[in-house]
Amino acid sequence: MAVAAELLERVAEGGLIEPPAPLVAMLSGGRDSVCMLDLAVRARGAEAVIALHVDYGLRPESHDDAGFCASLCEGAGVELRTERPVRPDTSGNLQAWARDVRYAAAARLAEARDATIVTGHTADDQVETILYRLASSPSRRALLGMKERDGRLARPLLGTTRAEVTAYDEERGLAWREDPTNEEEGYARNRVRHGLVPELAAIHPAAVQNVLRTAALLRDEAEVLDALVAAELDGSGEAPRGRILHARFAELPPSLRRLVLQRLADAAAGRPVAGAARFADQVAGLTRGGSRLDLGDGVQAVLESGVLRAERDA
Amino acid sequence: MAVAAELLERVAEGGLIEPPAPLVAMLSGGRDSVCMLDLAVRARGAEAVIALHVDYGLRPESHDDAGFCASLCEGAGVELRTERPVRPDTSGNLQAWARDVRYAAAARLAEARDATIVTGHTADDQVETILYRLASSPSRRALLGMKERDGRLARPLLGTTRAEVTAYDEERGLAWREDPTNEEEGYARNRVRHGLVPELAAIHPAAVQNVLRTAALLRDEAEVLDALVAAELDGSGEAPRGRILHARFAELPPSLRRLVLQRLADAAAGRPVAGAARFADQVAGLTRGGSRLDLGDGVQAVLESGVLRAERDA
Repeated sequence: MAVAAELLERVAEGGLIEPPAPLVAMLSGGRDSVCMLDLAVRARGAEAVIALHVDYGLRPESHDDAGFCASLCEGAGVELRTERPVRPDTSGNLQAWARDVRYAAAARLAEARDATIVTGHTADDQVETILYRLASSPSRRALLGMKERDGRLARPLLGTTRAEVTAYDEERGLAWREDPTNEEEGYARNRVRHGLVPELAAIHPAAVQNVLRTAALLRDEAEVLDALVAAELDGSGEAPRGRILHARFAELPPSLRRLVLQRLADAAAGRPVAGAARFADQVAGLTRGGSRLDLGDGVQAVLESGVLRAERDA
Repeated sequence: MAVAAELLERVAEGGLIEPPAPLVAMLSGGRDSVCMLDLAVRARGAEAVIALHVDYGLRPESHDDAGFCASLCEGAGVELRTERPVRPDTSGNLQAWARDVRYAAAARLAEARDATIVTGHTADDQVETILYRLASSPSRRALLGMKERDGRLARPLLGTTRAEVTAYDEERGLAWREDPTNEEEGYARNRVRHGLVPELAAIHPAAVQNVLRTAALLRDEAEVLDALVAAELDGSGEAPRGRILHARFAELPPSLRRLVLQRLADAAAGRPVAGAARFADQVAGLTRGGSRLDLGDGVQAVLESGVLRAERDA
């Protein structure tokens, strides 16, 4: 039971699932979520765990997945919540819809029980996420990957490979459903997993670990940079808190200027404003006195009396 | 002549090849270096350009490459220097040997003529370099890619795609040798070009541009972080210039700590000390009074009277 013992120790001591908060385990029935559920029960006891399965009804076999999850939870003595959302009529992005439904259901349940949500995301998922974002959008943030802890959400297996998870399930005699979420993942994600990652691994035997390590280094650096941004907006200068003197903004290094503008835009919108940072040079070039510049997503940069701020469109 | 005119303007106005320094054009005979040579001559005149070809003698056709370069330069009225290094007996890394020989020859020639070295590296080479390094080594530096200007070396085509270079050569009626450097590039590089890059492009149509843009953002951020490191070592605190109080070092954010230690090690060695940064936590944990820690590559961290420095092994 080498892997089973080692992984339990790693997860139990990882600081992500400690008491007293109960755990909402997102359960697709695939090997990763089956492993996570088993670890949650072993670490915290069945009474502290609630499993959440979402049956999207997108495939004929999806009800079998739901039945599999029901047997699994019954055997483990774990409470199971199964959601069956109504599929939208639109021919829009079903993967995005399924993801939104899943996380919204988990957030509601976790809120009601004051619980921590745990997912089965592995190191392989992390690498795939990083590479997918690297290809899809120009940004350092893309390279940071998923967080181990993000509000109520925890990803205790993010440092564990899919191979280790498989070995765990086999050692523990756990059954799983093959790729029940595959359909949701879509073409691009599968292409990353089955095309891009193997090509990367062919370049260098440690390629996957190297990508993960680079992401970790960038997360550290992001902390340093975030602290710099916060210091520019902390109100200790001549501008009020959350604003910045335009003259100061204009003389910042380009990268810091971009980060400061992004922070202003995000704070004004109450959510990330995609691409606001790319207007940093234009904002630096605004002339004084009531100038405005659209940053996208309903947010504007406003320069007034030498002070720069961002605000929502009226 | 749309591409030919546009590319000449881009390169001539790019600020990398302006007078008075003459240009040493590294010429393999491949499409990229043939394009760069032609642009150099058009921008600065044949008298201001010296071509450098290295005939490694690694393949039967290599003398044909040298002959091709001789005809090309004769036709363009450009001085050509051809080097024929003696191939080493060892069965070591011939690619690394060829690269070292090539750059050493260019550096000698540029030094003697007080010239700028220009290479034909394209945006495609840049993406390949970034992805290769991403796979091969864990580091933000890996993602920064090649610099447009690095001492005497300039890469005026770094923002130009291989497809644009090919279109340029065709418009200008320039012949080239197919992949004369292919053999030098080796398995990994070819696998990146023909395996990894196409897979990445299959994920997202703008994937290559997104990687380049991300690298540019990281280069900007690296400037900000480098300035932070320099400020820690500028001698304005209680430690002399180029050193840091150990107490201060230990309280820096992890990323900044790593960057500071790397800078200390590089400065002591007079060259990059691979992996010195990974000892940052250990160095922070040193106890006061004459402690030493090996940082690799013949460099040690030394803690003395509360001040941290790096020095070469005696």
